[in-house]
Amino acid sequence: MSESVNERPGILVDGLAADAVAATDRGLHFGDGLFETIAVTGGRPRRWERHMARLRAGCARLGFPAPDAGVCLGEAQALCAGRDRAVLKLIVTRGSGGRGYRPPRDPRPTRIMLCRDWPDTPARIRAGGAQVRFCRTRLGRNPLLAGLKHLNRLEYVLARAEWGDAFDEGLLCDDLGHVVEGTVTNLFAVSQGAIHTPDLSQCGVAGVVRGEIMERAEQLAIPLQVAQLTRDFVEQADELFLTNSLIGVWPVARVEQREHGIGPITRRLMAALTDD
Amino acid sequence: MSESVNERPGILVDGLAADAVAATDRGLHFGDGLFETIAVTGGRPRRWERHMARLRAGCARLGFPAPDAGVCLGEAQALCAGRDRAVLKLIVTRGSGGRGYRPPRDPRPTRIMLCRDWPDTPARIRAGGAQVRFCRTRLGRNPLLAGLKHLNRLEYVLARAEWGDAFDEGLLCDDLGHVVEGTVTNLFAVSQGAIHTPDLSQCGVAGVVRGEIMERAEQLAIPLQVAQLTRDFVEQADELFLTNSLIGVWPVARVEQREHGIGPITRRLMAALTDD
Repeated sequence: MSESVNERPGILVDGLAADAVAATDRGLHFGDGLFETIAVTGGRPRRWERHMARLRAGCARLGFPAPDAGVCLGEAQALCAGRDRAVLKLIVTRGSGGRGYRPPRDPRPTRIMLCRDWPDTPARIRAGGAQVRFCRTRLGRNPLLAGLKHLNRLEYVLARAEWGDAFDEGLLCDDLGHVVEGTVTNLFAVSQGAIHTPDLSQCGVAGVVRGEIMERAEQLAIPLQVAQLTRDFVEQADELFLTNSLIGVWPVARVEQREHGIGPITRRLMAALTDD
Repeated sequence: MSESVNERPGILVDGLAADAVAATDRGLHFGDGLFETIAVTGGRPRRWERHMARLRAGCARLGFPAPDAGVCLGEAQALCAGRDRAVLKLIVTRGSGGRGYRPPRDPRPTRIMLCRDWPDTPARIRAGGAQVRFCRTRLGRNPLLAGLKHLNRLEYVLARAEWGDAFDEGLLCDDLGHVVEGTVTNLFAVSQGAIHTPDLSQCGVAGVVRGEIMERAEQLAIPLQVAQLTRDFVEQADELFLTNSLIGVWPVARVEQREHGIGPITRRLMAALTDD
Protein backbone atom coordinates (compact mmCIF):
# COMPACT_ATOMS: atom_id res chain seq x y z
CA MET A 1 0.00 0.00 0.00
CA SER A 2 2.83 2.42 0.71
CA GLU A 3 4.57 4.23 -2.09
CA SER A 4 8.05 3.18 -2.99
CA VAL A 5 10.73 5.30 -1.38
CA ASN A 6 12.27 5.51 -4.83
CA GLU A 7 9.18 7.07 -6.29
CA ARG A 8 9.98 10.68 -6.95
CA PRO A 9 7.39 12.94 -8.46
CA GLY A 10 8.79 15.08 -11.26
CA ILE A 11 6.31 17.87 -10.68
CA LEU A 12 4.95 19.66 -7.64
CA VAL A 13 1.97 21.98 -7.90
CA ASP A 14 1.62 24.13 -4.78
CA GLY A 15 3.86 21.64 -3.04
CA LEU A 16 1.93 18.51 -3.92
CA ALA A 17 2.90 15.84 -6.43
CA ALA A 18 0.76 16.47 -9.48
CA ASP A 19 0.89 16.35 -13.22
CA ALA A 20 -1.73 18.96 -14.02
CA VAL A 21 -2.71 22.55 -13.37
CA ALA A 22 -6.22 24.01 -13.11
CA ALA A 23 -7.68 24.64 -16.57
CA THR A 24 -8.75 28.06 -15.28
CA ASP A 25 -5.23 29.16 -14.31
CA ARG A 26 -4.30 32.61 -15.56
CA GLY A 27 -0.86 31.31 -16.46
CA LEU A 28 -2.51 29.22 -19.17
CA HIS A 29 -5.13 31.77 -20.21
CA PHE A 30 -2.95 34.88 -20.38
CA GLY A 31 0.65 33.92 -19.64
CA ASP A 32 -0.01 35.80 -16.40
CA GLY A 33 3.06 34.70 -14.47
CA LEU A 34 6.81 34.24 -14.34
CA PHE A 35 9.35 31.46 -14.34
CA GLU A 36 12.87 30.61 -13.26
CA THR A 37 15.13 27.96 -14.76
CA ILE A 38 17.56 26.82 -12.10
CA ALA A 39 20.60 24.57 -12.34
CA VAL A 40 20.70 21.80 -9.73
CA THR A 41 24.06 20.23 -8.94
CA GLY A 42 24.69 17.76 -6.15
CA GLY A 43 21.00 17.96 -5.30
CA ARG A 44 21.35 21.68 -4.55
CA PRO A 45 19.83 24.52 -6.59
CA ARG A 46 22.50 26.95 -7.70
CA ARG A 47 22.27 30.78 -7.56
CA TRP A 48 19.17 30.33 -5.44
CA GLU A 49 19.21 33.81 -3.90
CA ARG A 50 19.60 35.46 -7.29
CA HIS A 51 16.69 33.49 -8.75
CA MET A 52 14.46 34.28 -5.78
CA ALA A 53 15.38 37.97 -5.91
CA ARG A 54 14.47 38.15 -9.60
CA LEU A 55 11.24 36.27 -8.98
CA ARG A 56 10.27 38.63 -6.17
CA ALA A 57 11.02 41.66 -8.34
CA GLY A 58 8.95 40.18 -11.17
CA CYS A 59 5.98 39.44 -8.93
CA ALA A 60 6.12 42.99 -7.61
CA ARG A 61 6.05 44.37 -11.14
CA LEU A 62 3.13 42.14 -12.16
CA GLY A 63 1.34 42.91 -8.90
CA PHE A 64 0.90 39.61 -7.10
CA PRO A 65 2.59 38.14 -4.04
CA ALA A 66 5.80 36.16 -4.52
CA PRO A 67 5.95 32.68 -3.06
CA ASP A 68 7.87 32.19 0.16
CA ALA A 69 11.48 31.50 -0.79
CA GLY A 70 11.94 29.11 2.13
CA VAL A 71 8.94 27.05 1.10
CA CYS A 72 10.22 26.98 -2.48
CA LEU A 73 13.66 25.88 -1.34
CA GLY A 74 12.25 23.01 0.70
CA GLU A 75 10.18 21.87 -2.26
CA ALA A 76 13.09 22.22 -4.65
CA GLN A 77 15.32 20.12 -2.43
CA ALA A 78 12.64 17.46 -2.00
CA LEU A 79 11.94 17.37 -5.74
CA CYS A 80 15.58 17.17 -6.78
CA ALA A 81 16.91 15.05 -3.89
CA GLY A 82 19.47 12.51 -5.00
CA ARG A 83 19.89 13.95 -8.46
CA ASP A 84 23.46 14.87 -9.25
CA ARG A 85 22.52 17.24 -12.05
CA ALA A 86 19.07 18.41 -12.98
CA VAL A 87 17.14 21.43 -14.15
CA LEU A 88 14.52 22.90 -11.86
CA LYS A 89 11.85 24.99 -13.54
CA LEU A 90 9.71 27.07 -11.22
CA ILE A 91 6.61 28.68 -12.68
CA VAL A 92 4.60 31.11 -10.57
CA THR A 93 1.28 32.35 -11.93
CA ARG A 94 -1.37 34.72 -10.60
CA GLY A 95 -3.55 31.64 -10.12
CA SER A 96 -7.21 31.42 -11.10
CA GLY A 97 -9.87 34.06 -10.73
CA GLY A 98 -10.58 37.61 -11.75
CA ARG A 99 -12.92 38.62 -14.54
CA GLY A 100 -11.28 38.14 -17.90
CA TYR A 101 -8.03 40.06 -17.98
CA ARG A 102 -8.94 41.85 -14.75
CA PRO A 103 -6.82 40.38 -11.97
CA PRO A 104 -8.49 39.07 -8.82
CA ARG A 105 -8.30 41.37 -5.82
CA ASP A 106 -6.78 38.69 -3.62
CA PRO A 107 -4.74 36.55 -5.98
CA ARG A 108 -3.77 33.09 -4.84
CA PRO A 109 -0.71 32.40 -6.99
CA THR A 110 0.02 28.93 -8.31
CA ARG A 111 3.49 27.45 -7.81
CA ILE A 112 4.55 24.81 -10.32
CA MET A 113 7.91 23.13 -9.89
CA LEU A 114 9.28 20.73 -12.48
CA CYS A 115 12.49 18.73 -12.16
CA ARG A 116 13.96 17.77 -15.52
CA ASP A 117 17.03 16.03 -16.84
CA TRP A 118 20.13 18.06 -17.38
CA PRO A 119 20.34 19.00 -21.07
CA ASP A 120 22.68 17.00 -23.22
CA THR A 121 24.87 19.87 -24.40
CA PRO A 122 27.70 19.03 -26.79
CA ALA A 123 31.04 19.24 -24.98
CA ARG A 124 32.48 20.99 -28.04
CA ILE A 125 30.60 24.19 -27.23
CA ARG A 126 32.34 25.01 -23.97
CA ALA A 127 35.68 23.89 -25.39
CA GLY A 128 35.42 25.27 -28.90
CA GLY A 129 32.64 27.81 -28.81
CA ALA A 130 29.04 28.07 -29.98
CA GLN A 131 27.79 28.39 -33.54
CA VAL A 132 25.34 31.28 -33.60
CA ARG A 133 22.94 32.79 -36.11
CA PHE A 134 20.70 35.85 -36.29
CA CYS A 135 16.96 35.20 -36.09
CA ARG A 136 14.51 36.85 -38.44
CA THR A 137 11.95 37.03 -35.62
CA ARG A 138 12.16 40.42 -33.91
CA LEU A 139 11.25 41.29 -30.34
CA GLY A 140 8.54 43.86 -29.73
CA ARG A 141 9.42 46.48 -27.14
CA ASN A 142 7.52 47.11 -23.94
CA PRO A 143 9.31 48.60 -20.94
CA LEU A 144 6.58 47.32 -18.60
CA LEU A 145 7.59 43.73 -19.35
CA ALA A 146 11.24 44.19 -20.31
CA GLY A 147 13.74 42.22 -18.25
CA LEU A 148 11.10 39.95 -16.73
CA LYS A 149 11.19 36.20 -17.21
CA HIS A 150 7.45 36.17 -17.78
CA LEU A 151 5.30 33.54 -19.44
CA ASN A 152 4.58 35.47 -22.67
CA ARG A 153 7.19 33.71 -24.79
CA LEU A 154 5.66 33.29 -28.22
CA GLU A 155 8.31 35.47 -29.86
CA TYR A 156 10.96 33.11 -28.53
CA VAL A 157 9.06 30.02 -29.70
CA LEU A 158 8.80 31.48 -33.21
CA ALA A 159 12.48 32.43 -33.17
CA ARG A 160 13.57 28.97 -32.02
CA ALA A 161 11.41 27.40 -34.72
CA GLU A 162 13.55 29.11 -37.37
CA TRP A 163 16.31 26.51 -37.23
CA GLY A 164 16.93 22.92 -36.21
CA ASP A 165 20.31 21.63 -35.08
CA ALA A 166 22.64 23.56 -37.37
CA PHE A 167 23.27 26.28 -34.77
CA ASP A 168 23.62 26.33 -31.00
CA GLU A 169 21.81 29.61 -30.47
CA GLY A 170 20.01 32.35 -32.33
CA LEU A 171 20.42 36.07 -31.63
CA LEU A 172 17.36 38.26 -31.40
CA CYS A 173 17.05 41.89 -32.44
CA ASP A 174 14.27 44.25 -31.46
CA ASP A 175 12.04 45.93 -34.02
CA LEU A 176 14.56 48.76 -34.36
CA GLY A 177 17.33 46.30 -35.22
CA HIS A 178 19.25 46.47 -31.94
CA VAL A 179 20.69 43.15 -30.80
CA VAL A 180 19.03 42.15 -27.52
CA GLU A 181 19.99 38.60 -26.53
CA GLY A 182 19.92 34.97 -27.59
CA THR A 183 16.72 32.94 -27.42
CA VAL A 184 17.80 31.40 -24.10
CA THR A 185 20.95 33.39 -23.33
CA ASN A 186 22.23 36.88 -22.68
CA LEU A 187 24.89 38.29 -24.97
CA PHE A 188 28.21 39.96 -24.19
CA ALA A 189 30.51 41.52 -26.79
CA VAL A 190 34.12 42.43 -26.05
CA SER A 191 35.59 45.28 -28.03
CA GLN A 192 38.87 47.09 -27.36
CA GLY A 193 39.18 45.54 -23.92
CA ALA A 194 35.70 46.51 -22.73
CA ILE A 195 32.60 44.36 -22.34
CA HIS A 196 29.33 45.51 -23.85
CA THR A 197 25.97 43.93 -23.14
CA PRO A 198 22.62 44.99 -24.56
CA ASP A 199 20.38 47.38 -22.70
CA LEU A 200 17.26 45.43 -21.63
CA SER A 201 15.04 48.35 -20.70
CA GLN A 202 12.75 47.80 -23.72
CA CYS A 203 12.72 44.02 -24.14
CA GLY A 204 14.67 40.88 -23.31
CA VAL A 205 15.23 38.82 -20.18
CA ALA A 206 17.70 39.98 -17.53
CA GLY A 207 19.38 36.67 -16.74
CA VAL A 208 20.79 35.92 -13.31
CA VAL A 209 24.17 34.99 -14.78
CA ARG A 210 24.15 38.28 -16.69
CA GLY A 211 23.91 40.01 -13.33
CA GLU A 212 26.71 37.87 -11.98
CA ILE A 213 28.95 38.61 -14.97
CA MET A 214 28.44 42.31 -14.40
CA GLU A 215 29.58 41.91 -10.79
CA ARG A 216 32.56 39.74 -11.75
CA ALA A 217 33.66 42.25 -14.38
CA GLU A 218 33.64 44.97 -11.77
CA GLN A 219 35.65 42.80 -9.35
CA LEU A 220 38.14 42.04 -12.12
CA ALA A 221 38.27 45.73 -13.12
CA ILE A 222 37.15 44.94 -16.67
CA PRO A 223 35.15 47.89 -18.04
CA LEU A 224 31.53 46.94 -18.81
CA GLN A 225 28.88 48.99 -20.55
CA VAL A 226 25.17 48.38 -20.90
CA ALA A 227 24.26 49.88 -24.25
CA GLN A 228 22.26 49.58 -27.43
CA LEU A 229 24.28 47.29 -29.68
CA THR A 230 23.99 47.19 -33.44
CA ARG A 231 24.38 44.02 -35.44
CA ASP A 232 27.55 45.46 -37.01
CA PHE A 233 29.05 46.06 -33.58
CA VAL A 234 28.32 42.48 -32.54
CA GLU A 235 29.65 41.00 -35.75
CA GLN A 236 32.87 42.98 -35.47
CA ALA A 237 33.47 42.40 -31.76
CA ASP A 238 36.80 40.89 -30.69
CA GLU A 239 35.08 38.32 -28.47
CA LEU A 240 31.51 37.25 -27.93
CA PHE A 241 30.01 35.11 -25.22
CA LEU A 242 26.61 33.95 -24.09
CA THR A 243 25.34 33.24 -20.59
CA ASN A 244 22.51 31.51 -18.83
CA SER A 245 21.85 29.61 -15.62
CA LEU A 246 22.52 26.20 -17.09
CA ILE A 247 25.47 26.85 -19.37
CA GLY A 248 27.20 29.53 -17.31
CA VAL A 249 29.35 31.05 -20.08
CA TRP A 250 29.49 29.86 -23.67
CA PRO A 251 32.17 31.41 -25.86
CA VAL A 252 30.92 32.15 -29.38
CA ALA A 253 33.05 30.64 -32.14
CA ARG A 254 31.02 31.76 -35.13
CA VAL A 255 28.21 34.18 -35.92
CA GLU A 256 26.70 33.29 -39.28
CA GLN A 257 29.77 33.08 -41.55
CA ARG A 258 32.14 35.05 -39.34
CA GLU A 259 34.60 33.23 -37.07
CA HIS A 260 35.40 34.53 -33.59
CA GLY A 261 38.23 33.31 -31.42
CA ILE A 262 37.80 32.53 -27.73
CA GLY A 263 39.48 35.56 -26.28
CA PRO A 264 41.20 36.33 -22.98
CA ILE A 265 38.35 38.26 -21.37
CA THR A 266 35.89 35.47 -22.11
CA ARG A 267 38.31 32.99 -20.55
CA ARG A 268 38.76 35.12 -17.45
CA LEU A 269 35.02 35.35 -16.91
CA MET A 270 34.51 31.64 -17.57
CA ALA A 271 37.06 30.95 -14.86
CA ALA A 272 35.60 33.54 -12.50
CA LEU A 273 32.13 32.09 -12.86
CA THR A 274 33.29 28.53 -12.33
CA ASP A 275 34.56 29.59 -8.92
CA ASP A 276 31.02 30.43 -7.87
CA MET B 1 -24.02 5.10 -9.27
CA SER B 2 -24.91 6.86 -12.50
CA GLU B 3 -24.21 10.51 -12.96
CA SER B 4 -27.09 12.88 -12.79
CA VAL B 5 -28.40 13.85 -16.20
CA ASN B 6 -28.24 17.39 -14.96
CA GLU B 7 -24.56 17.11 -14.31
CA ARG B 8 -22.83 19.19 -16.91
CA PRO B 9 -19.10 19.57 -16.91
CA GLY B 10 -18.04 23.16 -17.37
CA ILE B 11 -14.74 22.25 -19.00
CA LEU B 12 -13.66 19.79 -21.68
CA VAL B 13 -10.01 19.06 -22.30
CA ASP B 14 -9.51 17.26 -25.60
CA GLY B 15 -13.18 16.39 -25.49
CA LEU B 16 -13.24 14.90 -22.02
CA ALA B 17 -14.70 16.43 -18.88
CA ALA B 18 -11.74 17.69 -16.89
CA ASP B 19 -10.72 20.51 -14.65
CA ALA B 20 -6.99 20.50 -15.30
CA VAL B 21 -4.40 20.68 -18.05
CA ALA B 22 -0.99 18.95 -18.16
CA ALA B 23 1.57 20.92 -16.16
CA THR B 24 3.93 20.50 -19.12
CA ASP B 25 1.59 22.17 -21.62
CA ARG B 26 3.27 24.80 -23.76
CA GLY B 27 0.21 27.00 -23.37
CA LEU B 28 1.14 27.37 -19.71
CA HIS B 29 4.90 27.50 -20.17
CA PHE B 30 5.08 29.94 -23.08
CA GLY B 31 1.57 31.10 -23.95
CA ASP B 32 2.12 28.96 -27.04
CA GLY B 33 -1.45 28.91 -28.32
CA LEU B 34 -4.59 30.79 -29.25
CA PHE B 35 -8.10 31.31 -27.98
CA GLU B 36 -11.57 32.23 -29.11
CA THR B 37 -14.33 33.74 -26.97
CA ILE B 38 -17.66 32.76 -28.44
CA ALA B 39 -21.19 33.91 -27.60
CA VAL B 40 -23.69 31.10 -27.09
CA THR B 41 -27.38 31.89 -27.45
CA GLY B 42 -30.17 29.35 -27.44
CA GLY B 43 -27.54 26.64 -26.90
CA ARG B 44 -25.90 27.55 -30.22
CA PRO B 45 -22.47 29.16 -30.65
CA ARG B 46 -22.72 32.36 -32.70
CA ARG B 47 -20.42 33.40 -35.53
CA TRP B 48 -19.01 29.89 -35.46
CA GLU B 49 -17.53 29.94 -38.95
CA ARG B 50 -15.80 33.24 -38.36
CA HIS B 51 -14.28 32.01 -35.11
CA MET B 52 -13.09 28.79 -36.71
CA ALA B 53 -11.63 30.65 -39.67
CA ARG B 54 -9.65 32.96 -37.38
CA LEU B 55 -8.50 30.01 -35.29
CA ARG B 56 -7.31 28.15 -38.40
CA ALA B 57 -5.44 31.23 -39.62
CA GLY B 58 -3.82 31.65 -36.22
CA CYS B 59 -2.72 28.03 -36.01
CA ALA B 60 -1.22 28.33 -39.49
CA ARG B 61 0.76 31.40 -38.43
CA LEU B 62 2.02 29.73 -35.25
CA GLY B 63 2.76 26.54 -37.16
CA PHE B 64 0.64 23.82 -35.59
CA PRO B 65 -2.47 22.00 -36.81
CA ALA B 66 -5.86 23.53 -36.08
CA PRO B 67 -8.45 21.34 -34.38
CA ASP B 68 -11.20 19.87 -36.51
CA ALA B 69 -14.02 22.41 -36.59
CA GLY B 70 -16.66 19.69 -36.65
CA VAL B 71 -15.25 18.05 -33.54
CA CYS B 72 -15.13 21.43 -31.83
CA LEU B 73 -18.72 22.18 -32.76
CA GLY B 74 -19.94 18.88 -31.35
CA GLU B 75 -18.08 19.52 -28.12
CA ALA B 76 -19.31 23.09 -27.92
CA GLN B 77 -22.90 22.00 -28.36
CA ALA B 78 -22.54 19.25 -25.76
CA LEU B 79 -20.87 21.61 -23.30
CA CYS B 80 -23.41 24.41 -23.71
CA ALA B 81 -26.54 22.29 -24.23
CA GLY B 82 -29.60 23.72 -22.53
CA ARG B 83 -27.98 27.03 -21.71
CA ASP B 84 -29.90 29.96 -23.08
CA ARG B 85 -26.93 32.31 -22.92
CA ALA B 86 -23.36 31.44 -22.14
CA VAL B 87 -19.79 32.23 -23.10
CA LEU B 88 -17.70 29.53 -24.69
CA LYS B 89 -13.96 29.95 -24.41
CA LEU B 90 -11.88 27.69 -26.63
CA ILE B 91 -8.14 27.55 -26.00
CA VAL B 92 -5.90 25.64 -28.41
CA THR B 93 -2.26 25.19 -27.47
CA ARG B 94 0.68 23.48 -29.16
CA GLY B 95 0.40 20.82 -26.45
CA SER B 96 3.35 19.39 -24.54
CA GLY B 97 6.76 18.50 -25.89
CA GLY B 98 9.65 20.03 -27.72
CA ARG B 99 12.88 21.12 -26.09
CA GLY B 100 12.43 24.41 -24.30
CA TYR B 101 11.11 26.98 -26.73
CA ARG B 102 11.79 24.66 -29.66
CA PRO B 103 8.45 23.29 -30.85
CA PRO B 104 7.98 19.54 -31.18
CA ARG B 105 8.18 18.17 -34.72
CA ASP B 106 4.79 16.51 -34.48
CA PRO B 107 2.79 18.72 -32.17
CA ARG B 108 -0.30 17.26 -30.55
CA PRO B 109 -2.30 20.38 -29.75
CA THR B 110 -4.42 20.61 -26.63
CA ARG B 111 -8.05 21.72 -26.93
CA ILE B 112 -9.56 23.30 -23.83
CA MET B 113 -13.20 24.35 -23.89
CA LEU B 114 -14.79 26.25 -21.02
CA CYS B 115 -18.46 27.17 -20.75
CA ARG B 116 -19.06 30.20 -18.55
CA ASP B 117 -21.96 32.35 -17.45
CA TRP B 118 -22.97 35.22 -19.66
CA PRO B 119 -21.39 38.40 -18.28
CA ASP B 120 -23.62 40.68 -16.29
CA THR B 121 -23.24 43.78 -18.45
CA PRO B 122 -25.11 46.88 -17.32
CA ALA B 123 -28.09 47.52 -19.62
CA ARG B 124 -27.20 51.22 -19.58
CA ILE B 125 -24.19 50.62 -21.85
CA ARG B 126 -26.08 49.47 -24.91
CA ALA B 127 -28.77 52.06 -24.32
CA GLY B 128 -26.69 55.00 -23.19
CA GLY B 129 -23.14 54.21 -24.26
CA ALA B 130 -19.93 53.11 -22.62
CA GLN B 131 -17.65 55.16 -20.37
CA VAL B 132 -14.14 54.78 -21.73
CA ARG B 133 -10.65 55.80 -20.63
CA PHE B 134 -7.15 55.68 -22.09
CA CYS B 135 -4.75 53.18 -20.52
CA ARG B 136 -1.20 54.09 -19.60
CA THR B 137 -0.06 50.58 -20.57
CA ARG B 138 1.17 50.56 -24.15
CA LEU B 139 1.21 47.67 -26.59
CA GLY B 140 4.54 46.55 -28.01
CA ARG B 141 4.55 45.98 -31.75
CA ASN B 142 5.32 42.74 -33.50
CA PRO B 143 3.86 42.01 -36.94
CA LEU B 144 4.43 38.28 -36.46
CA LEU B 145 1.87 38.19 -33.66
CA ALA B 146 -0.32 41.15 -34.62
CA GLY B 147 -3.99 40.38 -35.16
CA LEU B 148 -3.78 36.98 -33.49
CA LYS B 149 -5.85 36.11 -30.44
CA HIS B 150 -2.86 34.39 -28.88
CA LEU B 151 -2.21 33.51 -25.26
CA ASN B 152 0.46 36.16 -24.60
CA ARG B 153 -1.83 38.63 -22.88
CA LEU B 154 0.19 40.19 -20.08
CA GLU B 155 -0.06 43.66 -21.60
CA TYR B 156 -3.82 43.39 -21.45
CA VAL B 157 -3.78 42.14 -17.87
CA LEU B 158 -1.63 45.10 -16.82
CA ALA B 159 -3.88 47.49 -18.74
CA ARG B 160 -7.04 46.09 -17.16
CA ALA B 161 -5.46 46.35 -13.72
CA GLU B 162 -5.26 50.12 -14.15
CA TRP B 163 -8.88 50.73 -13.17
CA GLY B 164 -11.71 49.08 -11.27
CA ASP B 165 -15.37 49.74 -12.05
CA ALA B 166 -15.30 53.44 -12.90
CA PHE B 167 -15.04 52.78 -16.64
CA ASP B 168 -16.49 50.17 -18.99
CA GLU B 169 -13.43 49.85 -21.17
CA GLY B 170 -9.89 51.14 -21.57
CA LEU B 171 -8.29 52.12 -24.86
CA LEU B 172 -4.79 50.93 -25.66
CA CYS B 173 -2.16 52.77 -27.68
CA ASP B 174 0.99 51.24 -29.13
CA ASP B 175 4.44 52.44 -28.17
CA LEU B 176 4.26 55.10 -30.89
CA GLY B 177 1.05 56.49 -29.44
CA HIS B 178 -1.35 55.21 -32.10
CA VAL B 179 -4.71 54.06 -30.74
CA VAL B 180 -5.09 50.32 -31.39
CA GLU B 181 -8.14 48.92 -29.61
CA GLY B 182 -9.83 48.45 -26.26
CA THR B 183 -8.63 45.80 -23.81
CA VAL B 184 -11.40 43.41 -24.96
CA THR B 185 -12.87 45.32 -27.89
CA ASN B 186 -12.06 46.74 -31.29
CA LEU B 187 -12.54 50.45 -31.84
CA PHE B 188 -14.33 52.34 -34.61
CA ALA B 189 -14.35 56.12 -34.99
CA VAL B 190 -16.79 57.95 -37.26
CA SER B 191 -15.65 61.26 -38.71
CA GLN B 192 -17.31 63.24 -41.49
CA GLY B 193 -19.53 60.33 -42.44
CA ALA B 194 -16.72 57.75 -42.75
CA ILE B 195 -15.74 54.97 -40.37
CA HIS B 196 -12.11 54.61 -39.31
CA THR B 197 -10.71 51.61 -37.47
CA PRO B 198 -7.09 51.11 -36.36
CA ASP B 199 -4.64 49.25 -38.52
CA LEU B 200 -3.75 46.00 -36.70
CA SER B 201 -0.69 45.03 -38.71
CA GLN B 202 1.69 45.78 -35.80
CA CYS B 203 -0.32 44.80 -32.72
CA GLY B 204 -3.86 44.23 -31.49
CA VAL B 205 -6.46 41.53 -31.96
CA ALA B 206 -8.51 41.36 -35.16
CA GLY B 207 -11.93 40.59 -33.69
CA VAL B 208 -14.52 38.61 -35.58
CA VAL B 209 -17.14 41.32 -35.10
CA ARG B 210 -14.63 43.84 -36.43
CA GLY B 211 -14.54 41.78 -39.62
CA GLU B 212 -18.31 41.64 -39.69
CA ILE B 213 -18.63 45.41 -39.21
CA MET B 214 -16.31 45.95 -42.17
CA GLU B 215 -18.56 43.78 -44.32
CA ARG B 216 -21.73 45.47 -43.10
CA ALA B 217 -20.28 48.91 -43.77
CA GLU B 218 -19.56 47.87 -47.34
CA GLN B 219 -23.08 46.49 -47.76
CA LEU B 220 -24.52 49.73 -46.37
CA ALA B 221 -22.19 51.81 -48.58
CA ILE B 222 -20.66 53.54 -45.58
CA PRO B 223 -17.01 54.41 -46.32
CA LEU B 224 -14.58 52.59 -44.03
CA GLN B 225 -10.84 53.06 -43.70
CA VAL B 226 -8.27 51.00 -41.85
CA ALA B 227 -5.66 53.49 -40.71
CA GLN B 228 -3.30 54.61 -38.00
CA LEU B 229 -5.41 56.67 -35.62
CA THR B 230 -4.05 59.30 -33.26
CA ARG B 231 -5.53 59.93 -29.85
CA ASP B 232 -6.59 63.39 -31.03
CA PHE B 233 -8.48 61.89 -33.95
CA VAL B 234 -10.30 59.48 -31.65
CA GLU B 235 -11.14 62.15 -29.09
CA GLN B 236 -12.53 64.47 -31.76
CA ALA B 237 -14.51 61.82 -33.68
CA ASP B 238 -18.22 62.43 -34.26
CA GLU B 239 -19.10 58.93 -33.09
CA LEU B 240 -17.18 56.10 -31.46
CA PHE B 241 -18.15 52.50 -30.96
CA LEU B 242 -16.59 49.31 -29.67
CA THR B 243 -17.17 45.74 -30.79
CA ASN B 244 -16.58 42.21 -29.62
CA SER B 245 -18.19 38.79 -29.86
CA LEU B 246 -20.17 39.12 -26.66
CA ILE B 247 -21.31 42.73 -26.77
CA GLY B 248 -21.73 43.09 -30.51
CA VAL B 249 -21.62 46.90 -30.72
CA TRP B 250 -21.27 49.27 -27.79
CA PRO B 251 -21.68 52.96 -28.53
CA VAL B 252 -19.19 55.12 -26.63
CA ALA B 253 -20.78 57.88 -24.55
CA ARG B 254 -17.67 59.33 -22.99
CA VAL B 255 -13.89 59.13 -23.44
CA GLU B 256 -12.19 60.46 -20.33
CA GLN B 257 -13.92 63.85 -19.82
CA ARG B 258 -15.29 64.23 -23.35
CA GLU B 259 -18.91 63.31 -24.10
CA HIS B 260 -19.88 61.62 -27.35
CA GLY B 261 -23.42 61.20 -28.60
CA ILE B 262 -24.70 57.95 -30.06
CA GLY B 263 -24.71 58.87 -33.71
CA PRO B 264 -26.62 57.66 -36.76
CA ILE B 265 -23.88 55.47 -38.23
CA THR B 266 -23.38 53.67 -34.92
CA ARG B 267 -27.13 53.04 -34.74
CA ARG B 268 -27.25 51.71 -38.31
CA LEU B 269 -24.45 49.25 -37.59
CA MET B 270 -25.97 48.18 -34.28
CA ALA B 271 -29.16 47.39 -36.17
CA ALA B 272 -27.33 45.67 -39.02
CA LEU B 273 -25.43 43.45 -36.62
CA THR B 274 -28.51 42.51 -34.66
CA ASP B 275 -29.94 41.06 -37.89
CA ASP B 276 -27.12 38.51 -37.97
